[in-house]
Amino acid sequence: MRDGEQTPGVSLVAENKLRIAQRLDELGVDVIEAGFASVSEGEMAALRLITNQDLRAEISSAGRGLKGDIDAVLKCGASTMSMIIPTSDLHIECKLHKTRDQVLKATEDCVLYAKDHGLKVDLLAEDATRSDFDYLIKIFQTAVDAGVDRVTPCDTVGILTPDRSFDFFSKLTDKISVPIGVHCHNDFGMAVANTIAALGAGAQEAHATVNGLGERAGNAALEEIVITLRSLYKLNLNIKTPLLYSTSQLVSRLTGIHTQPNKAIVGENAFTHESGIHTQGILANPLTYEPISPELVGCTRRIAPGKHSGSNAIRANLANMGLNPNEEQFNDIMQRIKELGDKGKTVMDADVLAIAETVLGLGGDKPIQLVEMTFVGGNKVTSTASVRLKVQGQDVWGSAIGVGPVDAAINAVKVAIAEAEPITLEQYNVKAITGGTDAMVEVVVHMRKANRTVTAMGLREDIVKASMEAVISGMNVLKTDYNGKPTPASF
Amino acid sequence: MRDGEQTPGVSLVAENKLRIAQRLDELGVDVIEAGFASVSEGEMAALRLITNQDLRAEISSAGRGLKGDIDAVLKCGASTMSMIIPTSDLHIECKLHKTRDQVLKATEDCVLYAKDHGLKVDLLAEDATRSDFDYLIKIFQTAVDAGVDRVTPCDTVGILTPDRSFDFFSKLTDKISVPIGVHCHNDFGMAVANTIAALGAGAQEAHATVNGLGERAGNAALEEIVITLRSLYKLNLNIKTPLLYSTSQLVSRLTGIHTQPNKAIVGENAFTHESGIHTQGILANPLTYEPISPELVGCTRRIAPGKHSGSNAIRANLANMGLNPNEEQFNDIMQRIKELGDKGKTVMDADVLAIAETVLGLGGDKPIQLVEMTFVGGNKVTSTASVRLKVQGQDVWGSAIGVGPVDAAINAVKVAIAEAEPITLEQYNVKAITGGTDAMVEVVVHMRKANRTVTAMGLREDIVKASMEAVISGMNVLKTDYNGKPTPASF
Repeated sequence: MRDGEQTPGVSLVAENKLRIAQRLDELGVDVIEAGFASVSEGEMAALRLITNQDLRAEISSAGRGLKGDIDAVLKCGASTMSMIIPTSDLHIECKLHKTRDQVLKATEDCVLYAKDHGLKVDLLAEDATRSDFDYLIKIFQTAVDAGVDRVTPCDTVGILTPDRSFDFFSKLTDKISVPIGVHCHNDFGMAVANTIAALGAGAQEAHATVNGLGERAGNAALEEIVITLRSLYKLNLNIKTPLLYSTSQLVSRLTGIHTQPNKAIVGENAFTHESGIHTQGILANPLTYEPISPELVGCTRRIAPGKHSGSNAIRANLANMGLNPNEEQFNDIMQRIKELGDKGKTVMDADVLAIAETVLGLGGDKPIQLVEMTFVGGNKVTSTASVRLKVQGQDVWGSAIGVGPVDAAINAVKVAIAEAEPITLEQYNVKAITGGTDAMVEVVVHMRKANRTVTAMGLREDIVKASMEAVISGMNVLKTDYNGKPTPASF
Repeated sequence: MRDGEQTPGVSLVAENKLRIAQRLDELGVDVIEAGFASVSEGEMAALRLITNQDLRAEISSAGRGLKGDIDAVLKCGASTMSMIIPTSDLHIECKLHKTRDQVLKATEDCVLYAKDHGLKVDLLAEDATRSDFDYLIKIFQTAVDAGVDRVTPCDTVGILTPDRSFDFFSKLTDKISVPIGVHCHNDFGMAVANTIAALGAGAQEAHATVNGLGERAGNAALEEIVITLRSLYKLNLNIKTPLLYSTSQLVSRLTGIHTQPNKAIVGENAFTHESGIHTQGILANPLTYEPISPELVGCTRRIAPGKHSGSNAIRANLANMGLNPNEEQFNDIMQRIKELGDKGKTVMDADVLAIAETVLGLGGDKPIQLVEMTFVGGNKVTSTASVRLKVQGQDVWGSAIGVGPVDAAINAVKVAIAEAEPITLEQYNVKAITGGTDAMVEVVVHMRKANRTVTAMGLREDIVKASMEAVISGMNVLKTDYNGKPTPASF
């Protein structure tokens, strides 16, 4: 929670820091580095809030090798201090403007002072992997003599490789009598592998952050370390792995830092399959293309349609909508899905339905069509929208206000189609918009009717139009059930 | 480009596939696996477009061990085929419903057929790392006898660790006479480390994707492998590393799959520094917290304000605006910035200015204030907006149309403030919106005046209001220069 919150742009209020701490405790981590007591009053208050909860996990606060920082840690109520002391000449000279001897002396004084005042002390040697090794040992030995509880060399700029990590920690564990931690950064993309290698060489505590957050390219990702140890090394950990996915989502929501779809273990695509070869395998036996089951981390599997889709996946998808084309029709459908993909379009459930209907001659008009939409808004105007829809040939109107034009327009649709059978908008997502105010906006919605969910997309330069397109297209899929016939209008 | 495009949701039109292929060629990669010829007509056309360009790189197409797939590769004009043949019992039985002997025979037939027709052949053994090792050797040996040019065992579900990768490839290189490739997936976050270990054991070709795209958690990231080999192993590669960042951006834009801020090498935060300890070090000597210089990969460094900010970073920031507070004022400013961070707010340049002005009593009214804004839009209405601004006390009006309400409103501001000195909106970004149509929308803009750039943010439930807030706040920072006094109105 300290290195993670140092991610540029991330700053958490005390209540949210507490929520994350409670979740980490529930997850089963042994030590929570909950903050950096000397940073600000708010940080101090947040730490106090956390140390007052009587959590199972050991709570630590970071601090520099300064008396003031140690006092701050004492004041916040943490039982442990993560005492950060730079050990490379580069850091000692350029940053501290001190000499090696001065840092050695400060280490001894600070550890003695912190121990005298009852703190458990983990010495974090900053930039340890670029430090003179003999000097590093001297620092650690001095700290051990002064009563330090753990020492953790930090690979501050992520320059270890797994081999070098193994050698480095092997040499350390030979010489140091207290438990050794490992703290890796991900600048070259190897933080997790380096952490695993260090544990193999005898390190006993792995520093990690949820989603691999942290300064620059971040720290070693907690979820990746945990699942690697469990699944590839068959180690029993105390981590409740089914909470990993929701923990990742919680941290992502509270920090505003989203994981990329192809993030290991917890990314949106980690258990999503599109290509034909892959979906065919997954449908036969998930082990073919999944090293771990999604349930292990509290996630679910998703089969996505697309140009690489195999026939099995599409057939399953159509059967869900009550459509059972013959072989010739089916080949035509597959062909058209691939053409859509060739055009660069992400293929959604709504597209698969539209294609199948065309091929099977079921189409005709969509049950719901947007005829007219108007919205107004501004800083002195309540956002208001009206829509006119054709629902199975019949005109319906609706108007509504909202927090902005998108909300007002979607609310107007809900008003227009106010009937029994519930279709709900489960998720409304807009992909990050980059470039300019006239960039394309991609809206993806997940909608549900009873226990059937569908995805639909809208892609326009105007976010209101894109949202409307996505929602109406999703409603049309859900209203279609060829097992019966198109169901009555509802939202 | 084949595995990368298999990322769920990604589908590229031929022109964009060509742009990526040309960029990879320029970057200096040796082999481009440009697609999967048998997938669709469009894919075939895209491959033809690429093979017709006479690029320096060897162009390969993927295909299964089927006569039809080999014919498709021949038809697309690729010189090389990446021939995918499953070798694990799980894949052979569950997916192919064949026996080991049948697959062995098919391998021989397919390699012979492809070689007879003039293709260079790279045999991709699917799920090789979960295959019976002796059987795998048998497959490879059969392929070698049939004239295969390269063999590549695929770690299809990413279960290798660096140690196991090294052992696996050491045993292979002992037995196989043709060059061996390595193809790693990132399910446990170790694809790059596993690839590096394989190269150390004698593998000669590394398969990689830009941004680590690919099915599920993706493949080994090209940029991470390249920079690791160059910076940690001091190897000279033919890759033009200063093109890495823009290549990542190109692929991200064309695929719609954004990298997370904490992505190694090419993430938005890879060279961004916020915490006090870090910015202090960076300002003294960038090497303290940067293992490689941003220029190496064509990126630039950024110092971000925030609650962990040190005094040096904030002082530099204020000096840029022509503000030189005394020690007491400065401490007050620092205090307030930390308080803002404690409240969970991302601190932008605009916030630093607002705080400094308050403390220094410079404030008064902002040079530019939004008095009134109105917009209308819809599916049968041209998006139109009008604004009334106070610019240094004077009312100015503007109206404009746009592709949507946001674009219209920002255009109206540009019209209202139509004067000489150019402030340009360099970047307009909206963070992904998740949850619902009434979720908070976070707009971040980068604006420039001459060679000064600033960041500003707007945070509202209404995307139009959030955009307006960000732009006007950015303009106010740029218009403020206390070296002189507030500069005249301009956009």
